[in-house]
Parts: sequence; C-alpha cells; structure tokens
Amino acid sequence: MSEVLGPGSTVGILGGGQLGRMLAIAAAQLGLHAHIYCPEDNPPAGEVSAKTSQGTYDDAAKLAAFAAEVDVVTYEFENVPASAVDALEPLVPVRPGRAALAAAQDRIVEKNFLNAAGAPTVPYAAVDDAASLAKALEEIGAPSIIKTRRFGYDGKGQARIMTPADADAALEAMAGAPAILEGFADFRREVSVIAVRGLDGTVAVFDPGENEHSEGILRKTTVPCGPPDEAFEIAKRILTALDYVGVIGVELFETKDGALQVNEIAPRVHNTGHWTIEACAVDQFQQHIRAICGWPLGDPARHSDAVMVNLIGDEADNWAILPGAVHLYGKGEARPGRKMGHVTTTSPRSA
Amino acid sequence: MSEVLGPGSTVGILGGGQLGRMLAIAAAQLGLHAHIYCPEDNPPAGEVSAKTSQGTYDDAAKLAAFAAEVDVVTYEFENVPASAVDALEPLVPVRPGRAALAAAQDRIVEKNFLNAAGAPTVPYAAVDDAASLAKALEEIGAPSIIKTRRFGYDGKGQARIMTPADADAALEAMAGAPAILEGFADFRREVSVIAVRGLDGTVAVFDPGENEHSEGILRKTTVPCGPPDEAFEIAKRILTALDYVGVIGVELFETKDGALQVNEIAPRVHNTGHWTIEACAVDQFQQHIRAICGWPLGDPARHSDAVMVNLIGDEADNWAILPGAVHLYGKGEARPGRKMGHVTTTSPRSA
Repeated sequence: MSEVLGPGSTVGILGGGQLGRMLAIAAAQLGLHAHIYCPEDNPPAGEVSAKTSQGTYDDAAKLAAFAAEVDVVTYEFENVPASAVDALEPLVPVRPGRAALAAAQDRIVEKNFLNAAGAPTVPYAAVDDAASLAKALEEIGAPSIIKTRRFGYDGKGQARIMTPADADAALEAMAGAPAILEGFADFRREVSVIAVRGLDGTVAVFDPGENEHSEGILRKTTVPCGPPDEAFEIAKRILTALDYVGVIGVELFETKDGALQVNEIAPRVHNTGHWTIEACAVDQFQQHIRAICGWPLGDPARHSDAVMVNLIGDEADNWAILPGAVHLYGKGEARPGRKMGHVTTTSPRSA
Repeated sequence: MSEVLGPGSTVGILGGGQLGRMLAIAAAQLGLHAHIYCPEDNPPAGEVSAKTSQGTYDDAAKLAAFAAEVDVVTYEFENVPASAVDALEPLVPVRPGRAALAAAQDRIVEKNFLNAAGAPTVPYAAVDDAASLAKALEEIGAPSIIKTRRFGYDGKGQARIMTPADADAALEAMAGAPAILEGFADFRREVSVIAVRGLDGTVAVFDPGENEHSEGILRKTTVPCGPPDEAFEIAKRILTALDYVGVIGVELFETKDGALQVNEIAPRVHNTGHWTIEACAVDQFQQHIRAICGWPLGDPARHSDAVMVNLIGDEADNWAILPGAVHLYGKGEARPGRKMGHVTTTSPRSA
C-alpha cells in the first residue's frame, strides 16, 4: 500500500476533452484534485478541475512543471507522444504505462502484441507501398480494409478494398503513411469490454456491451448483450500481458460462428463504457482513478440494464426532450461528427 | 419555454460546501457552468466550478457583480440572509424563492406555514421568556423540546425538557434567542422525502428514505422504507403552497400509529437524498439544476435499493476499505462532527 495516493493527492490528466472532464469529476468525487494539461485554451475538462495548464505535448519544460505539481499522470487519449512520456516518466508515475501506449499507437505493434498475448485478431499485414499491398492482398484477400498504422480514430484514415481493383485508390487514401491491411471480419456484431487492473494486479471487468456505429462513429452501446465469457478472459490476458494499471477499452468482433476477435484496444476510459456511470455503483471513471492511485477497485457489477446513445453534432440541441441521464460536454460549437454529449437510459436488470 | 436556460448558461450557487460541490458537478454534467459565491477561500465546491467569487452575504456590491455573471441563482443552505436576496432578486432569478427561505429560516413561521398548507406538525408554541415557556409547557406538556427559532442545524441550539424542572436550564441554553417549544413526537422513526418542482409546476418525488441520527447528525438513510403514500401528498402540498422551484427536503416523523408529522423542511438539496446519485437515473442534484433552469424534470424512479452512510470526522480515513460508491468532499481537516463524505451501497430493487 506504499504507493497509495490518498484523498488530497493530485491526479494529472493529459488531455482536456470529455473523457478528461469525466475523469476530473470522478477524481473530485473521491476527494482527489484534478490537474489538466492540454494544448487548448479553456478545455471542457478545465472547469471541473482544480487546475489547468496549457502546453503542447512536446514542451518538456512545461511538462516538468506539471509533473512537479501532480502525484500521478494519466491520459484521456492514446496518441500521447512518446516524447511526453519521456519527459514525465522520470518525474512522476505515468499510468497506464509506456507498453500500453506503444501497443495502442501502431496497429501492427498492437496486433503483434494481441496475438502473442493470446487475444485473437483478424489476419493482417503491413503495407508500405503498392508491392507490399499486392502481396498482402494475395494473403488476406478482398474484401479487406486498409488503415494507417498510426493516429486513426472514428473511422478516419481507412479505406475499404472490395475487389483488388480498389487497391490503388485505397493506397492513395493513405497519403504515403505506413499502413496495415486487415482481413474484413465477417462479423455479426461489435462488442466491447471495459476492464480495469489495479496497482496490485487485481482485475475487474464490466459487463460487455454491444456497439452500433455510423460513419465510423459510435452511436449506441447496449448492455447486457449476452456475451461469450471468453470476452472476460481476453480482457484479462491483455491487461496482464501489459502489466497494466487503469481502465482499458477492448473492442471485439463477434463472428457469425460466435468466435471473438479483438479489433482494437484503447488504453483509457472508453466511450463504450459511459453506460457504467448510471448502471454500476462504481463507474469506469472512478475505477480508473482508483486504479492509478493504488486504491482497491470497486465492484463492477451492473445493477441495471442500460442503453447509451451518443449525441453527435446538433443532436445535442435536443437536450430538453431527451429522456434519461443527459451528459453534455460543454463544447462550444456543435460541428457535424463532433461528440457533444451522450444520454443513458436505464431499466431494471434483466439478466 | 421562454425562461429555459440552456447548455452554456451559468448557474450561480450561494455556498461552497459539499452540496454546492455536488450541484456544480450536476450543472457541468448538463453542459452548464457553475459559479460559486461564498465567504470562504478555496471552498470544496470551487475546484469543480467554472468560477468562484469570494464575498460575504451582506456585500451588495460583490453580490451585484456575481449576479451580472450568472443566469440564475440558487443556494446550498437555507440561512441565506434576506439582505442577500434583496440584493440579488432585482438582478437575476433566485430559485427557490423568498417564500421558501422565509418558511425555512424560522421554526414558528415554518410550522404556521406547514399547518396552513395541510402538512401536519407536532404541537408547538413560541417561547421568548420564562413566562411564555411556562405557558407553552402547560399546553404542550413534557417531554418536549425547546429550539432556537432560527439558525439551528445538526442538533445545535436544542434542549430537551423531560420534566418541568428542566425548564430553566433549557431556556438558558437558548441564550436569549427567540425559541419554540415543540411537543416531543412519540415517533417510530424519521423518514424524509426529497421532492422537486419544475418551473412549469410539474412535481416529481423520490422514494422516501428512513433516517438514523446520532448526536443530532444524520448517520444513515435507507431506501426503500415502505412509506405511507401520504408522504408524497404532503411534499406536493408544500411545494405547491410555496410556488416552489427546485428540490426540497421534507423530514417527517412517522408516529407509532402510522401518522406523519413534518419535522422540518430544507429548501435545497438534502443529505438524505444523496442516495439518489447511485440509485436513480437522474439524481437530486440534476433535478435541482433542471428545475431552476426551466428544464423538464427527470424520472425520479429508483432503479436500485440503497443505503447511504455519512462519513463523519475521521471515519473518512477509512476511504480505502469502504465498499460501494465513495464520495469525499475535499475538506481539509477531519474535525469531529464534520461531514467529510458519504458512501452509498446499492442492491437490486426489492419493492
């Protein structure tokens, strides 16, 4: 228990968006202070945090000043530059650690790691040019999907290859960035598991949810979804292999024959876990804060069924008539495709 | 709907303690900004609010500056001085309004109001001196209880009169303050009802809870508690009679023959409603913000059973081993009798 950060300690959070905002609220609920670090002025997380520091992720001096004021650092997004971790890690614990970030930032590294950890994925191959794409297509076939290896999110940096004739245009869409060709999963649905591992190695797993996307953006998560128990085991294998501390989001494809393949992992609290705020006594944000501060994990039991729906762009304008628990992120402009909030409805636990 | 304050509006809150803190979090969750006004430096609510203004409640200039920056004003405590309302009300809506504060600040005014509204109370009489106390004791008898008319809380400013011989000492304990003699309720238990009334007059009532006190301080609230339906009706009568907007806490005695008597009302979110955070989709803090901003009220249905236990003084030191949802208020010193946090455990809804 020597590493436990008790009430009054300060949690540093890289990133000031809605996930940082909900992490900051969870920290406050547990009697901890939140300190946001991000490049933006006046970020959504700032107004619910004890302090906000504005700086870029490559500003070593500002990061050092931030580290001096916090007791642990975590992040709300997986594309934290290695340079930022280099600057912070000698000064303050960064949780989850470097291994999780490395695995999450490059789709090839990620899939190599997952398969080695016993977490199956679709077939895949690295693609750097027309020749390697042609070779990969021979192995994996079409339909398949090409994605940039790094910095993709919400469906950006992806192109489908329905027939080999699509290859040139798809490669062009990568704009020269290193890429990955992934087999097109013949899946029935996407499910995700939100899991957490404590500093002492204890693991807690929330019930899996079924996800629906539109235009690459999550629309809806429904819990329960009658998941195979294997999802729990896969999440545990990943957490253990990474010696992970904190919450992780694991997105899985369930194939038509009921097998599970990991699509991707996100080393952070996850949009598909927002339902836990209303349907679990201790939600994903509190679990994450508990874990990174060395507290015992809370009970992940789901007391209610839940449906979480994202409010994208001007859908958030319907705030007055939405049933359920409304969450708005305090973002200024409701641009198309921007996650402005979410709403969760609960019902008595069915199973 | 002309008075609706949408996301991006600012809620002003008088008081920076734990209730203000939880109100500020609820405001943020709904996309509103919170602005705290209180005399203290660095209040618990400050770090989860967009802004904090430090000032006394009789500083008309500072209150006017505060009013200019907010769209509505509410408060976390019932002893808001009339002078503060005088300063604010011409500038910005104050919700709940003056009538609620007047009824809650003086126990004689309160009981007169309650009985006129059809909400029964124990017998009572005003006491200003030995003569009026003797007369009141003749009417009401002993055992009875003498309380200061104003500014009592958590059992302070009260003395029991078990026999008429206790009268002199009890009166002395009032230190010359105007007082009230109340009949000693022969009650089985104390229950409370948290209710809310919207700007359009809609009323929503949470399930009543059973309360346990120790040394005048709330220890525990348990829901459900099999309350008489009359509790709902009493709460509605009170809200309607006050033309109330926001959340109210109504403490009731249930007598041994099953009748209900109102003990007191608190025109604000209430410690006995903290269980709603975990056990209802829309909790008392969100209901209050919704009401004062003119939003439709949320569903007050309880999805789980709940037990809320206050963490008094150094009980909060047990944060690491407490089961359930832990809430710590970020207060510095764990003085005896000080509410440092609370913890709520939930279980599947039983009835």
